[in-house]
Amino acid sequence: MRTALCETLGIEYPIIGFTPSEHVAAAISNAGGLGVLGCVRFNDAAELDRVLDWMDANTSGRPYGVDVVMPAKIPAEGTSVDLGKLIPDEHRAFVARTLRELGVPEPADEAGQAGVLGWLHSVARSHVEVALRHPIKLIANALGSPPVDVIEQAHAHGVGVAALAGKVEHARRHVGNGVDFVVAQGYEAGGHTGEIASMVLLPEIVDAVGDSVPVLAAGGIGSGRQIAAALALGASGAWTGSLWLATEEYLRTMPGSGAMQAALVAATSSDTVRTRIYTGKPARLLRTRWTEAWAAPDAPEPLPMPLQNLLVAPAHDRLQEANDPTLVSMPAGQIVGRIDRVRPVAEIVGDLVRDYQETLDRLDKTR
Amino acid sequence: MRTALCETLGIEYPIIGFTPSEHVAAAISNAGGLGVLGCVRFNDAAELDRVLDWMDANTSGRPYGVDVVMPAKIPAEGTSVDLGKLIPDEHRAFVARTLRELGVPEPADEAGQAGVLGWLHSVARSHVEVALRHPIKLIANALGSPPVDVIEQAHAHGVGVAALAGKVEHARRHVGNGVDFVVAQGYEAGGHTGEIASMVLLPEIVDAVGDSVPVLAAGGIGSGRQIAAALALGASGAWTGSLWLATEEYLRTMPGSGAMQAALVAATSSDTVRTRIYTGKPARLLRTRWTEAWAAPDAPEPLPMPLQNLLVAPAHDRLQEANDPTLVSMPAGQIVGRIDRVRPVAEIVGDLVRDYQETLDRLDKTR
Repeated sequence: MRTALCETLGIEYPIIGFTPSEHVAAAISNAGGLGVLGCVRFNDAAELDRVLDWMDANTSGRPYGVDVVMPAKIPAEGTSVDLGKLIPDEHRAFVARTLRELGVPEPADEAGQAGVLGWLHSVARSHVEVALRHPIKLIANALGSPPVDVIEQAHAHGVGVAALAGKVEHARRHVGNGVDFVVAQGYEAGGHTGEIASMVLLPEIVDAVGDSVPVLAAGGIGSGRQIAAALALGASGAWTGSLWLATEEYLRTMPGSGAMQAALVAATSSDTVRTRIYTGKPARLLRTRWTEAWAAPDAPEPLPMPLQNLLVAPAHDRLQEANDPTLVSMPAGQIVGRIDRVRPVAEIVGDLVRDYQETLDRLDKTR
Repeated sequence: MRTALCETLGIEYPIIGFTPSEHVAAAISNAGGLGVLGCVRFNDAAELDRVLDWMDANTSGRPYGVDVVMPAKIPAEGTSVDLGKLIPDEHRAFVARTLRELGVPEPADEAGQAGVLGWLHSVARSHVEVALRHPIKLIANALGSPPVDVIEQAHAHGVGVAALAGKVEHARRHVGNGVDFVVAQGYEAGGHTGEIASMVLLPEIVDAVGDSVPVLAAGGIGSGRQIAAALALGASGAWTGSLWLATEEYLRTMPGSGAMQAALVAATSSDTVRTRIYTGKPARLLRTRWTEAWAAPDAPEPLPMPLQNLLVAPAHDRLQEANDPTLVSMPAGQIVGRIDRVRPVAEIVGDLVRDYQETLDRLDKTR
């Protein structure tokens, strides 16, 4: 399983693994892929710096990347307190009532809950600045092109920039802005997604920009067969996410994730929903009693980014503390149906590679 | 491009092409695939009989199939006049008002519009009976398993039965009922679809029933790369539909389809919508001013099958007569974005085969 991307990024397999866990990211890089650490959880850039120090010490010089959340169009600023004033009382009341009705315990320490500030532009910029002090190979932006000066800053450090695209026009815009890798993210993907499925989206984006930049396939990839399909469709590599959530390494970073992992293992491919309730933009989440409550007729419309995440972030903390698989709020793709147990990262990578080779052998017989 | 399915069906390429046009179906079979003629347009079984006579005379003994619309669960009966009484006045008024607001001309001959009776169980059964008098190779049912006695009748004639599945549980049920081929139809497909995209759905269904029956991939297939992806995911062949609508042969059967073809050529992969307005069940259609009118806040909820189609069938005739690409009501998959001109069927088949071989050559280099 080798493409030109392996040379470009200095990796063994064209498997990019996005994860909010440094233990998972390091394990993916150590297994021959490229681990990409999600930075949105770091409200304090100094904490990210310490975690990247740990990555450097635990990846033996193997390449890794980081993922920031930097909206190109919404330069949201101000502290969470300022922005909080923009959240309607009706929405706060709905969240409080829903948590009560779902039987979620009261928070142990309300004051400690700052929300997730990584959605703010200034915080995302601080992530970039810190990350560029480390030997990262890639900065990915979960919300399309980062601002051009950020791309230039990355290039000045010899770091490539990747941006997610759900439509051909996004991909063209990213390449025009100087982005080095386009991640074609299909409808079936977890997190922010568009409406075009990978089978259609991927070759469209490859035809549009594939001569200029490598295109990575995101959405629906959890087996070597799916990597082979993505490469058949013209991708230079696979961008994966959901399948690293159900790993032993994930629990090391986030020990309170047992209920989330139980929910992933229990879920079928029908148990996700694409909704604006996580960030304000459409994102695919596990379908749970929390997402169902927001789908009820009496639920308010989700707020625009970044307000929606500021609204629900404290609720997410309480849902996590509830430790109940039916009350999880977690981005996950339709591939979750394939996750049937919690495994070590290296075992998953090994299976992907073996299944890929078997798929190519099988395809050879159709000539 | 050869799989075990080619032996089973006696075809050269594992490409099944669904189409309501006998000219297209014959051309697909003559080009080495399996043309499958949609029967729902034939209110009169004798007309289907004549068309199948034409197919027999124009396919030189090559295999072909038929597609019926037979709900397993809704044995809808009665004439369209009886059923018409179940359609609320509000719905009739909305259709009349919408057609007026869209500037659709009054019908030339209102009395001649019987609607599409192929949705009725008795009519679909008459299609099966007529088809079994012809040397068909396959009966596909667009709505899942046909009743078991219909499957047995087909088998008694040595004819295989195919059924569409949007979830693993559908596929298991079909195989339990005796179905011979499962068509795994992804979210991106035209016509009736579920919510799981092909990239995820296909290997799930292959893992569930692939040891018992061949699984065909439907949804998002319009190039050899996509056929290679489908086969990588475990399919034994490709079930295609939308790409045969923009063919020269289609115009021979349906000369009034110029506006529809113009709409297909103009559409991008973002220009479809999954809605219940065509039949009462979720189906993917081209997005036009007609579908937008039904998406407006003042539009009524679509009726259940088979009432919705009885309601809108006369409107479909008037929309077709309007000859305006922005007023088309047509099932089509997200693959429409790839359709850039009207072509002969044989040219499309040739491109699929060539692109498939090139894809396999490209994949070989990743070993």
